[in-house]
Amino acid sequence: MATGHTVKAFDDDLGQLRALVAEMGGRAEQALADAVQALVRRDLDAAVRIVEDDKRIDELEVEVERHAIRLIALRAPMADDLRDVLAAMKIAGVIERMGDYAKNIAKRIPVLSDIKGIEPISILPAMARSVSDMVHAVLDAYARRDAAGAVRVAESDRTVDDFYNSIFRALLTHMMENPHTITASTHLLFIAKNLERIGDHATNVAEMVYYAATGHQMAERARGGDPLAAEEE
Amino acid sequence: MATGHTVKAFDDDLGQLRALVAEMGGRAEQALADAVQALVRRDLDAAVRIVEDDKRIDELEVEVERHAIRLIALRAPMADDLRDVLAAMKIAGVIERMGDYAKNIAKRIPVLSDIKGIEPISILPAMARSVSDMVHAVLDAYARRDAAGAVRVAESDRTVDDFYNSIFRALLTHMMENPHTITASTHLLFIAKNLERIGDHATNVAEMVYYAATGHQMAERARGGDPLAAEEE
Repeated sequence: MATGHTVKAFDDDLGQLRALVAEMGGRAEQALADAVQALVRRDLDAAVRIVEDDKRIDELEVEVERHAIRLIALRAPMADDLRDVLAAMKIAGVIERMGDYAKNIAKRIPVLSDIKGIEPISILPAMARSVSDMVHAVLDAYARRDAAGAVRVAESDRTVDDFYNSIFRALLTHMMENPHTITASTHLLFIAKNLERIGDHATNVAEMVYYAATGHQMAERARGGDPLAAEEE
Repeated sequence: MATGHTVKAFDDDLGQLRALVAEMGGRAEQALADAVQALVRRDLDAAVRIVEDDKRIDELEVEVERHAIRLIALRAPMADDLRDVLAAMKIAGVIERMGDYAKNIAKRIPVLSDIKGIEPISILPAMARSVSDMVHAVLDAYARRDAAGAVRVAESDRTVDDFYNSIFRALLTHMMENPHTITASTHLLFIAKNLERIGDHATNVAEMVYYAATGHQMAERARGGDPLAAEEE
């Protein structure tokens, strides 16, 4: 049976694990904000730095995994505690992908030689802010095991999807009217899609946080709509 | 200490876990093949079916997770065994995303009302076959703990990236020459990107299989190039 001593040791270990996940999340959030700023400012040095810094997020994911394995092997946590450890691993995996999307945005910056005339780019920073807010809020909900906060994050994915649909339509119209900007516009389309995907991933994390806090699945209506459905119109 | 009896029980449980992962993989592979066939044939019924069937892949991921948690809690596997269980969970997570990409392709089919005149679509089935082969081969390597097979899978990602780059360029040219097909072409671009991403995910699984089989990271050169670099040209 678990003694007070081993419970304390487990809690300390889990706290370290959660701190590593929080550090990963903070880095991914920063990478996202930096990538969109670098895009708008056409800052190639920043773009290189973001790609480089993503390695640290990847390393942190490996650390989370090692820490989790050691924790399971040493402490043999049962039921809810084991679920907490595995949730930390899963959330770390999602954050690693968020970092990849931010890196992907940064990688497109040198390719985009001329985006001055493409108006839809003016909406991207606002979309990125919404996505950044989601990522920040979901990490906060994770740290505080806050189910209501997780629901709010999932609900705000609709705003991000609306942004995506607006940009998608605006870019398509722009491409039809200015066929010479098709290459640049296509890259911007992929960038908007990357932002939309980060929002989806934040929603996935929100669902995990909600489940961990309540033991129930989040209701369907809390989650954002499907941007593909809107693209059809 | 582990007795012969508990080792056998663990091996049976792990075997079941691996069988669930194999079933998931088989379904994702099928969904991918069906989605591209439905796209080329404009088969809307098949598209609906693929989207519906993806739920089963999601359910299987939940089953893998439950099974893994029960296995860890009951058998308290150490070191390599624990790593095997967590690898199965991770691979299941990647396969779930592959299924999502196939579902995503299927969802775009009703949107694509007229793709007859867009020649680059003729390359998509060949690209899909390469991706399908990768998925099949990596599941095979996983089942047989075959490190050399895993390396071959990672190497073949280059072919998929070459396909992607060809389709990317061909679609961009087509859009510039036929601005009225921009909407449809954009959806095809996203479909090609989804296929390319499935190839990336197969490569990720190959890396996990290689690591599990050898205890070493796969050499960098075995992995495919970065399609973004080529898009720049």
